[in-house]
Amino acid sequence: MIITANNPDRKSWLQVSENSDFPIQNIPFGVFITRDDIITIGSRIGDFAIDLGAFHQLGYFEGIPLTEDIFLQDNLNDFIADGRKTWRLVRNRIAEVFDFDTGSLRDNEEHKNNIIFRIDEVEMLLPVSIGDYTDFYASKEHATNVGSLFRDPENALLPNWLHIPIGYHGRSSSIIPSGTPVRRPYGQTKPAEGTNIPGFGPTKLLDFELEMAFITTDANVLGDRIPIEEAEEYIFGLVQFNDWSARDIQAWEYVPLGPFLGKSFASTISPWIVTLDALEPFRTDNPKQVYTPLPYLKQIGKGSYDIHLQVGIQPENEEETIVANSNFKYMYWTMAQQLAHHTVNGCPVEAGDMMGSGTISGPTKDSFGSMLELTWRGQNPITLKDGTTRKFINDNDTVIMRAHCKNDTVRIGFGECIGKVLPAR
Amino acid sequence: MIITANNPDRKSWLQVSENSDFPIQNIPFGVFITRDDIITIGSRIGDFAIDLGAFHQLGYFEGIPLTEDIFLQDNLNDFIADGRKTWRLVRNRIAEVFDFDTGSLRDNEEHKNNIIFRIDEVEMLLPVSIGDYTDFYASKEHATNVGSLFRDPENALLPNWLHIPIGYHGRSSSIIPSGTPVRRPYGQTKPAEGTNIPGFGPTKLLDFELEMAFITTDANVLGDRIPIEEAEEYIFGLVQFNDWSARDIQAWEYVPLGPFLGKSFASTISPWIVTLDALEPFRTDNPKQVYTPLPYLKQIGKGSYDIHLQVGIQPENEEETIVANSNFKYMYWTMAQQLAHHTVNGCPVEAGDMMGSGTISGPTKDSFGSMLELTWRGQNPITLKDGTTRKFINDNDTVIMRAHCKNDTVRIGFGECIGKVLPAR
Repeated sequence: MIITANNPDRKSWLQVSENSDFPIQNIPFGVFITRDDIITIGSRIGDFAIDLGAFHQLGYFEGIPLTEDIFLQDNLNDFIADGRKTWRLVRNRIAEVFDFDTGSLRDNEEHKNNIIFRIDEVEMLLPVSIGDYTDFYASKEHATNVGSLFRDPENALLPNWLHIPIGYHGRSSSIIPSGTPVRRPYGQTKPAEGTNIPGFGPTKLLDFELEMAFITTDANVLGDRIPIEEAEEYIFGLVQFNDWSARDIQAWEYVPLGPFLGKSFASTISPWIVTLDALEPFRTDNPKQVYTPLPYLKQIGKGSYDIHLQVGIQPENEEETIVANSNFKYMYWTMAQQLAHHTVNGCPVEAGDMMGSGTISGPTKDSFGSMLELTWRGQNPITLKDGTTRKFINDNDTVIMRAHCKNDTVRIGFGECIGKVLPAR
Repeated sequence: MIITANNPDRKSWLQVSENSDFPIQNIPFGVFITRDDIITIGSRIGDFAIDLGAFHQLGYFEGIPLTEDIFLQDNLNDFIADGRKTWRLVRNRIAEVFDFDTGSLRDNEEHKNNIIFRIDEVEMLLPVSIGDYTDFYASKEHATNVGSLFRDPENALLPNWLHIPIGYHGRSSSIIPSGTPVRRPYGQTKPAEGTNIPGFGPTKLLDFELEMAFITTDANVLGDRIPIEEAEEYIFGLVQFNDWSARDIQAWEYVPLGPFLGKSFASTISPWIVTLDALEPFRTDNPKQVYTPLPYLKQIGKGSYDIHLQVGIQPENEEETIVANSNFKYMYWTMAQQLAHHTVNGCPVEAGDMMGSGTISGPTKDSFGSMLELTWRGQNPITLKDGTTRKFINDNDTVIMRAHCKNDTVRIGFGECIGKVLPAR
């Protein structure tokens, strides 16, 4: 099926500013609540939110096999479970109806009033009910930095890292949509030298982790695996992801079973899921892999995407300072490799599962994806525009992440992934 | 509220054999499918399954505030979310109606035909839709054994272990009900000495882990914590749990982020949730803790339960051999401590979440909860009744776990937690 929604020449009758993340070629999916307290699934063009529940009820999806209430839900899980063919039909139809030359909705004021909202009139909610959430550790630069900081700079990468897309199970219940404040967490920390009493209190080393995450559809049943060449069929789309981390809590708890409370206090995702289809024009190679992967992990063709990533810190009532610029293409392991690996043991992957990339650090010092790496564990504090310095994140700081793709004709973005840190209770 | 359901003197008009795990004092909750393909929530007395959907429809819960369809569901989540007061009213009422001296249902043949099934006429399903699943690592003997085997017998326990109920996030989607076959998983293993090519194939070291797990109700919202003195209020009940493990896959993948595919191929739970209320008569002290825990972890009163645990291995068409006898009371960290710890950072715990104890090993060699420990990594194979030996679990072996409490008057049990290992595909 041709992804006509991606046609770079198309313009919409809805106004879209030049640098918008949401031209008519994007057509992401999300869930929002309107001023009238109605929860619905929607899309976005420019600064307009499109109520797909109303759009469907008014007949604009005629001819596409969809259940009546598929968009009148508080999460996208059922729609995602419908599969790629349906996603394409729906995205193509939305593009058609909002095409500059299509009059059906453009010229119907009553319908427009029912379907279209200004983006500041709606509140974005979590787009999916996340069943299982896995976080990978797939940036070689990040793994090398962390290995150098905490273990041995000479042997920074652990022996398994170049052979396996290392990942771990994360906590779903603490995943929140962009804009939800993040409370500085309490926790246990390592006892002071020579004592046997652990520390306890609000984390002193609150950090962000710059990540992307993909959302899957139903992929396999228990005991089956997903061949790598089919893996992308089961990826609905991506969000930007801030995997907030309390470094002191994490350092004390994580051996031998991995990160736990140092991560599970909050994980922020951007509210619009940008489909893998929309990202297709920005496909690129992943970095050359040191060892030839085992056959089940062998990437065929370009497996990454050229997505520019940015992190800013904004102290309260002050200007934002950009502290990092990275790119999704730096990921050593592709999403297809991750999904093939995740299911090689027969583990079921379901609609609404989320898989994080792990912190995305690039090769240069200004492209690292966490304060831990940017300040080299606090040794090189960052000076913000207001003159204050940061080793980690302070109370009342807002961390803002952005992600977008751009070529000569189109810019496809994710909007913002924002969280303000509130003081500990 | 008095838990009249626990009255040890009560007898039922349904026949219960002397060593049954399910006397009228148990009244567990589960989900089953009847011969007529109807899925319902139910309970069990002796070898009879009680359809609580029909029981409710026929008016036997009159006076208890329950929604009409609360038991006509394929999981217990909504009922669990109703909270402890409702659970008690429901259990007390069931005990009353099935009391030897109560005639309302006993003497109504039509109602009995609608409500009561022989246990072999129903198929048990997963009792809850498990949102997040956490596995702890709370047996000191197990952690010491594993530390001795893989690290240093002189410093077997890691520095954090005596201060924190160590846990990690597990995979929910691979949790299956007792009876579901377990396919031997494929996976990567450590490269042979001197090579850089990892092994790949079916696991050679398939193991069980003898655990119990508790199911929670909605406990806290993001940013709040559960004080330890309230923690048990949020525990609905327990199941027995076999955390199947592929030791060779696990050993290669788990540093530094913890167990992943070595566990996520299958985790078996017993199908009846035995309520914490039913276990109340078997409350006991947990082991004395080496260090005084931090205040948020300070156990008040008896925090453990005297639950006898057993593991058997049954080769195909052969007799079962009991290979381990342990007890839940050996757990160093209590469930209340685990729940208080899990939420101290503000992580939300919800209805249907599951928390495993971690492998429960006792102080003696025959009380270890895994083949890894029982055979000391294969050094001391176990001889089964049929004369064959086991270092780990073979294809077509069935692993059977059992759990029960017993005092002078009552035996409360969990039935069986069974899985047969099928050869790799």
